[in-house]
Amino acid sequence: MTRVTVLGAGGWGTAFALVLADAGCDVHVWARRDAVARELHESRTNSVYLPGIELPTGVRATTDAAAALAGADLVVLAVPAQALREHLVRWAPLLPPAAPLVSLAKGVELGTGARMTEVVREVTGAAQERLVAVSGPNLALEVARREPSATVVACTDDTTGHAVADACTTASFRPYLSTDVVGVEVAGAVKNVVALAVGIAEGLGYGDNAKAAVVTRGLAESARLGVALGASSGTFAGLAGAGDLVATCASPLSRNHRAGVALGQGRGVQEVLGAGQVAEGVRSAAAVLGLAHSRGVQMPLTEQVAEVVAGRRSAAEAARALLSRPRTTDGI
Amino acid sequence: MTRVTVLGAGGWGTAFALVLADAGCDVHVWARRDAVARELHESRTNSVYLPGIELPTGVRATTDAAAALAGADLVVLAVPAQALREHLVRWAPLLPPAAPLVSLAKGVELGTGARMTEVVREVTGAAQERLVAVSGPNLALEVARREPSATVVACTDDTTGHAVADACTTASFRPYLSTDVVGVEVAGAVKNVVALAVGIAEGLGYGDNAKAAVVTRGLAESARLGVALGASSGTFAGLAGAGDLVATCASPLSRNHRAGVALGQGRGVQEVLGAGQVAEGVRSAAAVLGLAHSRGVQMPLTEQVAEVVAGRRSAAEAARALLSRPRTTDGI
Repeated sequence: MTRVTVLGAGGWGTAFALVLADAGCDVHVWARRDAVARELHESRTNSVYLPGIELPTGVRATTDAAAALAGADLVVLAVPAQALREHLVRWAPLLPPAAPLVSLAKGVELGTGARMTEVVREVTGAAQERLVAVSGPNLALEVARREPSATVVACTDDTTGHAVADACTTASFRPYLSTDVVGVEVAGAVKNVVALAVGIAEGLGYGDNAKAAVVTRGLAESARLGVALGASSGTFAGLAGAGDLVATCASPLSRNHRAGVALGQGRGVQEVLGAGQVAEGVRSAAAVLGLAHSRGVQMPLTEQVAEVVAGRRSAAEAARALLSRPRTTDGI
Repeated sequence: MTRVTVLGAGGWGTAFALVLADAGCDVHVWARRDAVARELHESRTNSVYLPGIELPTGVRATTDAAAALAGADLVVLAVPAQALREHLVRWAPLLPPAAPLVSLAKGVELGTGARMTEVVREVTGAAQERLVAVSGPNLALEVARREPSATVVACTDDTTGHAVADACTTASFRPYLSTDVVGVEVAGAVKNVVALAVGIAEGLGYGDNAKAAVVTRGLAESARLGVALGASSGTFAGLAGAGDLVATCASPLSRNHRAGVALGQGRGVQEVLGAGQVAEGVRSAAAVLGLAHSRGVQMPLTEQVAEVVAGRRSAAEAARALLSRPRTTDGI
């Protein structure tokens, strides 16, 4: 029986813990907040992040990272992108030396422009073959409801990739493998920014044609950045790229989408950021843009989103800037 | 002033006529039905296909193809895919010898597996440089409402492509150019089939994660077919590929999507086909599959849709067959 530690008990961490337990793993969840850990441990529910969901029996939860990590065969990192480094610094001495380290967060670190597996490698010194990114069209609540979902497990090492995929394969949750860790992580990070852009378009009253054009451009600039960083362009047409964008943009369940709608409707950045859970795309826009600039990659859509979330430009002005773009000859 | 003839007065033909008129063209519409021609000509409305829309002054309509085509600089073919050949046979002697011939239909001809521009070339003998395909995320009602929309104008000849793009560029409708006519046509045809599949998934009660996985696989097999036919894979990541899929799958306005939902809910094929306007995807599924088989291309999603629309398999059985697919290593 694979012993898995899930570090982080937000919506996606909890849903992934449920999947792992369904797949037959022995699952230990670490939660930052005592109330969340206690509720998870005692009633196997997480009413804040996954209302109406009950986890399988056997899932345990604690706020004690050392206890959660003891004897883990597999470690899942499920904290927000911008909080990963500070948490990892504390967890590093507790990590079992051979366990694969799986990143669930979608984002690029502000300041450093590092992808999540890069942060993990820097802080823990883990070999590349132990680093895994899981990303795809996985709205947490749907996964937790055991609605059919597919995801990508990315690892440069096939054996580790298959082991992680085996640990999270259930009747309703289907992982597909990739060795393009860079592509899968870039796709996930940029997706949050594009979801904000689509939400902004919706908030401005634009229809499905315009939103589809935003998604297409977002996908194109995501692939451009990825390829500049060494990714394969095909990854962006797959589940972690186009697939994730489709799910996020279609769904009212997506935080980034909702935040974008609020911005498009003219609500202020402070107000949107203050309302409940923070949309990762708001923070990632600047981080992704910084990374793009460092590689000389043009990302006009991300640039406009970054301007809007920084409060330097209104959503309507950003939309006008994008719509006046000159005609291209690549069908995008 | 460019004189344009639009042959066909369905929703998309009429919306495109509106765009051409907005762009400053002298637009003459041919309608098959007398009542539609008269309404368009007299009140510049098409209440059956575009309720609530009024076309610009100057747009004329007739059921007389010879009158509509006299002196045309540009001819737009806006009849359904499976009806194109029989109409063209009658129109061929009336076509101005140098005018670009623009195809708006998304589909592959049943029986021959021919793309729309191939049908045009076969029937009219027109040179490749005169053949243009226009395709993209263009829900007709949104275009007619002048909501921001982008499209792809595909032509092997740059000069013709630019001329057609110029003729249909307005403040809200933005064409981008491509020389990949094959890719743009294949993407459009397969899209209708994928939209059916997404509708079926929705009708079965699946969520956004599952629908995103369907879109991703559909896009992958669309690209596979296109590349086998000589298209560029990049086209499928663009507006005519991913973009069109996103719009169609997101929108309740799409006929194919709606038809799929009805099939997924267990309604019979005859009942769904009998209800109002026919969804092109229903007819295209078999045609696309035939084309794929002739080139040895695997299209498992299209295959299942073809089985469902032929009444040989229930939607639930088709979904089970797709979900039990073995794990792949390409992240799709």
